[in-house]
Amino acid sequence: MAADEFLIMPDPKDPRLTERVTGTDHDGKRVEMSVTVERPLTLFLNGQEIVTMMSICDYPEYMAIGYLVNQNMLLPGDEITGIDYEEDISTIVVRTAHKTNFEEKLKKKTLTSGCAQGTVFGDVMEKFEDVTLPVGTVIKTSWLNGLTKKINTQPSLYLEAGAIHGCVLAQQDRLLLYMEDVGRHNAIDKVAGYMFKHGIGGADKIFYTTGRLTSEMVIKTVQMGIPILVSRSGFTAWGVDLARQVGLTLIGRARGKRFVVLSGAERIVYDTENEAGEEEPADVHRKGAAQ
Amino acid sequence: MAADEFLIMPDPKDPRLTERVTGTDHDGKRVEMSVTVERPLTLFLNGQEIVTMMSICDYPEYMAIGYLVNQNMLLPGDEITGIDYEEDISTIVVRTAHKTNFEEKLKKKTLTSGCAQGTVFGDVMEKFEDVTLPVGTVIKTSWLNGLTKKINTQPSLYLEAGAIHGCVLAQQDRLLLYMEDVGRHNAIDKVAGYMFKHGIGGADKIFYTTGRLTSEMVIKTVQMGIPILVSRSGFTAWGVDLARQVGLTLIGRARGKRFVVLSGAERIVYDTENEAGEEEPADVHRKGAAQ
Repeated sequence: MAADEFLIMPDPKDPRLTERVTGTDHDGKRVEMSVTVERPLTLFLNGQEIVTMMSICDYPEYMAIGYLVNQNMLLPGDEITGIDYEEDISTIVVRTAHKTNFEEKLKKKTLTSGCAQGTVFGDVMEKFEDVTLPVGTVIKTSWLNGLTKKINTQPSLYLEAGAIHGCVLAQQDRLLLYMEDVGRHNAIDKVAGYMFKHGIGGADKIFYTTGRLTSEMVIKTVQMGIPILVSRSGFTAWGVDLARQVGLTLIGRARGKRFVVLSGAERIVYDTENEAGEEEPADVHRKGAAQ
Repeated sequence: MAADEFLIMPDPKDPRLTERVTGTDHDGKRVEMSVTVERPLTLFLNGQEIVTMMSICDYPEYMAIGYLVNQNMLLPGDEITGIDYEEDISTIVVRTAHKTNFEEKLKKKTLTSGCAQGTVFGDVMEKFEDVTLPVGTVIKTSWLNGLTKKINTQPSLYLEAGAIHGCVLAQQDRLLLYMEDVGRHNAIDKVAGYMFKHGIGGADKIFYTTGRLTSEMVIKTVQMGIPILVSRSGFTAWGVDLARQVGLTLIGRARGKRFVVLSGAERIVYDTENEAGEEEPADVHRKGAAQ
């Protein structure tokens, strides 16, 4: 597979994203290694400060748009008139043609919760219940095997420095977008931002994450209109409940040829031989480095 | 080592904490597995709603106290007059003898950030810069090897259902507190709450986490007055910067006998032979299930 299969992907060689540090190992020997750089970025929607995010800041515009989309502060019809990213003062301003009702939303957040996670369970759930995911989109086991293999071997900040989450948007067996970030929610927001900006729909797509299949990941995937969510990690009970409620295909523990599906199994097409679940080769194990 | 070495630890057999679900595997065969249950819990400090947390809710009182302590809403001298946990309506109320300045803090949070993570970089940083960590506390490599082995083999929700983070408070080679949660910040808050409630100081302790060594983890450990932080996962650059700034011993990638220390190496006592970093046995690998 060619690296340029992706429309967008991490640039592990970008010097702003990692830092070389020296330390000492278990034998008392000097070691040198790369660590991922996280920076604060304060997001404004028009004149209103919304949130400060900790991110690697490789795609601030997409992250800003995606955050607003996933918080329902930016709706499909909304026109973005400008985005100003000021790297030196760590701010980004998204400007829209029409003012949104974000002030009301911010007030609601203050009343119900101090954390962005809390807002997910406020007005976002209203939208969640109305979503209908397409039943015709399928995932073949041969695509799934190919996707996990390509993702594991794709040059990435994970392979360079570890301690990072990755999200991938795929169509059939083709990888479209690959985003990484210290925060799993930032990586998914960057994908959402790219999709919004470029008018990419979710109905025929597959979403892959290195992170756990929590309620938050299920809700965001459903909001993006994507019917299939895959992770190499495990499940939480609420994530499973929500996926079943809305008919999302939820595939977890996807490693090598193994996986478990706990919701929406009808979208899976078994087109590979039963090989008793061959394990991944040891060198592509992600041993908890992004936990 | 006896399981009752711990003052407090997870109860993986508690039926409220996991749920049995059925699904399908890579061969199309029916599988049954345990998944961790997450629930919302809304915290009130006296009459004021503070936050809604997603948690396994095994130790709601400790989590509530620890959240308030780690947000500087509860200070060392504050007297708690009562804690009311109402499981059926998912609320917990912490009552204090003297009203705190939480209203002002909440206002500050609203203005600076929509997420709890943001507040860490508000007033919490003021306290961070004044902390002096004890230089006399050490960690022997033999203790470190023993700790990681005991934690990996201790019955836990991780071994039962996966997709969960663990935090351990240790003194020399003795494990004191073991808390798990879907959210890493909840697990550390539960440890902080137990320490506050029982008057346990941090100066002679070691803190272990399965999660990454991010700025948030460094800040919380320093706030708890603990001079040594260990993780089986990797580092972020800001976590390393902050640890170096305050002289915290920061040990990452601690697996089997291997580790890397990127800050405060002077607290490490090498009392084990150089054995070229023996790997963990395969059955105790945490293969990213809590990512």
